[in-house]
Amino acid sequence: MSQSSPSLVPFRAVDAIRKKRDGHEHARQEIEQLVSAYTRGQIPDYQVAAWLMAVVLKGMTRAETAALTEAMLRSGEVLDLSSLPGVKVDKHSTGGVGDKTSLVLAPVAAAGGLLVPMISGRGLGHTGGTLDKLEAIPGFNVNLALPDFLRVLRQCGCAMIGQTAEIAPADKKLYALRDVTATVESPYLICASIMSKKLAEGIDGLVLDVKTGGGAFMKNQEDAAFLAELMVETGQRMGKKVVALLTDMDQPLGRKVGNALEVEECVEVLRGVGPDDLRQLCLELCGWMFLLGGRTKSKDEGSKLAANLIASGRGLEKFREMVKLQGGDEQVLDDLARLPQARHKAEVLSPREGFIIAIQCEQIGVASMMLGGGREKKEDSIDPAVGLVLHKKVGERVARGEPLCTIHYNSETRVTAARRIIEAGYQIADQSPSSVPPLVHGLICGTENEGS
Amino acid sequence: MSQSSPSLVPFRAVDAIRKKRDGHEHARQEIEQLVSAYTRGQIPDYQVAAWLMAVVLKGMTRAETAALTEAMLRSGEVLDLSSLPGVKVDKHSTGGVGDKTSLVLAPVAAAGGLLVPMISGRGLGHTGGTLDKLEAIPGFNVNLALPDFLRVLRQCGCAMIGQTAEIAPADKKLYALRDVTATVESPYLICASIMSKKLAEGIDGLVLDVKTGGGAFMKNQEDAAFLAELMVETGQRMGKKVVALLTDMDQPLGRKVGNALEVEECVEVLRGVGPDDLRQLCLELCGWMFLLGGRTKSKDEGSKLAANLIASGRGLEKFREMVKLQGGDEQVLDDLARLPQARHKAEVLSPREGFIIAIQCEQIGVASMMLGGGREKKEDSIDPAVGLVLHKKVGERVARGEPLCTIHYNSETRVTAARRIIEAGYQIADQSPSSVPPLVHGLICGTENEGS
Repeated sequence: MSQSSPSLVPFRAVDAIRKKRDGHEHARQEIEQLVSAYTRGQIPDYQVAAWLMAVVLKGMTRAETAALTEAMLRSGEVLDLSSLPGVKVDKHSTGGVGDKTSLVLAPVAAAGGLLVPMISGRGLGHTGGTLDKLEAIPGFNVNLALPDFLRVLRQCGCAMIGQTAEIAPADKKLYALRDVTATVESPYLICASIMSKKLAEGIDGLVLDVKTGGGAFMKNQEDAAFLAELMVETGQRMGKKVVALLTDMDQPLGRKVGNALEVEECVEVLRGVGPDDLRQLCLELCGWMFLLGGRTKSKDEGSKLAANLIASGRGLEKFREMVKLQGGDEQVLDDLARLPQARHKAEVLSPREGFIIAIQCEQIGVASMMLGGGREKKEDSIDPAVGLVLHKKVGERVARGEPLCTIHYNSETRVTAARRIIEAGYQIADQSPSSVPPLVHGLICGTENEGS
Repeated sequence: MSQSSPSLVPFRAVDAIRKKRDGHEHARQEIEQLVSAYTRGQIPDYQVAAWLMAVVLKGMTRAETAALTEAMLRSGEVLDLSSLPGVKVDKHSTGGVGDKTSLVLAPVAAAGGLLVPMISGRGLGHTGGTLDKLEAIPGFNVNLALPDFLRVLRQCGCAMIGQTAEIAPADKKLYALRDVTATVESPYLICASIMSKKLAEGIDGLVLDVKTGGGAFMKNQEDAAFLAELMVETGQRMGKKVVALLTDMDQPLGRKVGNALEVEECVEVLRGVGPDDLRQLCLELCGWMFLLGGRTKSKDEGSKLAANLIASGRGLEKFREMVKLQGGDEQVLDDLARLPQARHKAEVLSPREGFIIAIQCEQIGVASMMLGGGREKKEDSIDPAVGLVLHKKVGERVARGEPLCTIHYNSETRVTAARRIIEAGYQIADQSPSSVPPLVHGLICGTENEGS
């Protein structure tokens, strides 16, 4: 793809807004000009806000979405990892409750010979964020400068940091504007935001974990599939190997929700134990990472490799290596009690006997947020120690008075509301549910670079 | 209608944007809060820009449109004309080419006993503006402060000024934002902008002249009718007598286009001569003004009254009175040569014999603008002397080499392009056109205060 060439017609933002308002397709160059002028401060927020709303309501073609993604990507630095030997593969999740696979996947994939340059985000609302989880490990520094990030990556094969100022500055500016103009909810804009940041990592392949269900951003499977297809096609148009899994977020993933608690559960999985659903999803996603990275000939083979790397303890050792290189207390991995611990625990008991037929997933996330485990607003600080341990998940039997959930908390004032939400969030019936939600709802492979 | 009461739920602009984005109806109070907070600078431009685009693309109900109009109206001062005896009636036109009826209507209606507190705008693009025309009269001051405006109104029954800072400041701020965010073209926003300013005049009745055709803002009759209905209903919901005429703008109104030239043509009409179409439309509109103002029992009777007031010279005398009170050179009315005169004239000759079957009305406006008679951008200054005199209009026969139009110009560099546009704008055929566009396409009376 060529760089933008100088335009003969002077670019006027108002013309671009009008064009999108009237449902027409932008030329690639128009999108490049809009994004680059906005990033340089040459177009005011109000014009871009009107354009964003027109995009939300009129949509974009695949070509426009790819052009937007690339313009945002090129607004900043694109990592050049060509000096590092090996194939670079990352995973991105659209976010959910108890969704903690990154902490397992990055070390296991690296232990299997891939390079995983993972740049992640923080939690907002009911969803958790990888950076917040990592910061529950005392000393762990997610704010490495790019040269340090590359050093860790070179030394241990994986590194995990937050977005830096150099990466996709257009996305930072656009996201802040979208947040206050009700223009977040557009698959085209979500796709460009995610893919511009991920492709700025200089990766060869990307596995997308697109969540669907009550605890996901996309509640409904059609919307999730649409976003997944858009992201896969956009990545493939830019010459990357991309697949997307539609995975379940109708109940929390694993049994622990909250930052230190989720680190704990990831270490359990890396030790070869931990809850089945989390372990299985990690093997599934890692299988795809190994396939895309050319380490195995099939996804199933990749999953087996991942299982072996966990069984042999090499995944956990890789995690230890990364924690140490990023300034974290690696003794945490041997003694989980070194993680921040909440001062109080309280049990939520089942009011009746029966089967769990549903858990209101988003509400579980909200309860954890209310305890201090998440952020209502971006500026809020979080408490790494608090959270929930779910003893019962969908399809399981419960006796009257048996614990459904243990609340880990530090503030008495917050626990009552959280308890009420959890109680209301568990749906219990006499009969077991006709089906338990599958872990993976679908797979989107795209057209494998047929797009232009 | 009650003033806004304090809200229990704190108002968040982002919620209002989301609501409109998703196609829901705003509560009256929400619109009041949005407009009043924006006018006070408590909501940033970028949020209102996103909301405006959502309004453009999702529309508004009649109740929302009325609420927006009233909120904009109440953002500033509403003239209290109760101390002036008599019924206050105004006319507003959506604008066109050669559309100059205000200069005839205000004095004739005032001569007939109505009070006409007319606050007008300037021309932009291919359309002219009443203020620019009035300023072609040497000394005429359209920038009277409100007390002076009221004094002129009291003394002569009509006064004509530009929008003051006190009138509908929300509209000024919103319009400036709409102009740069491609959110001008929405009937709901156009309606609220026009009606908030007009109703701030403290009038009892309003005659709307909604132009349709190639030289109008609304090219197509359905769009014009929709806007007209919206404005009529909005005015009636606010307890005013309002009617709208859909009138033709498929060719220029009258034969003169350009500021001093249009003053000249209005004086001709007030002298009892002038072109038929302009004279007839003035009588039609004035008939409605007299009916709404209760001066006559029917529109036709009103038109007859207007014709009598012109024939007796009382309309012209009223115009003279107003010109004098507003600082203008009233001798202009006796000696039209005192108006600014262009240094050069050039004829556009017919390339063939035949009948004029169409005139590209907007292009005639553009030609006048290019000569300096209008503004491409708001900041441009204008030349009052330049313009066009059309010798031939639709349906008329022309001989080869006979003048179609005389260009009045001051700059050689501009005349060539204007000439080319005019030549291309006249369509001439062997046969006379099957029909000449009617002056009035329709009448919209609304539900006469049935709305709530």
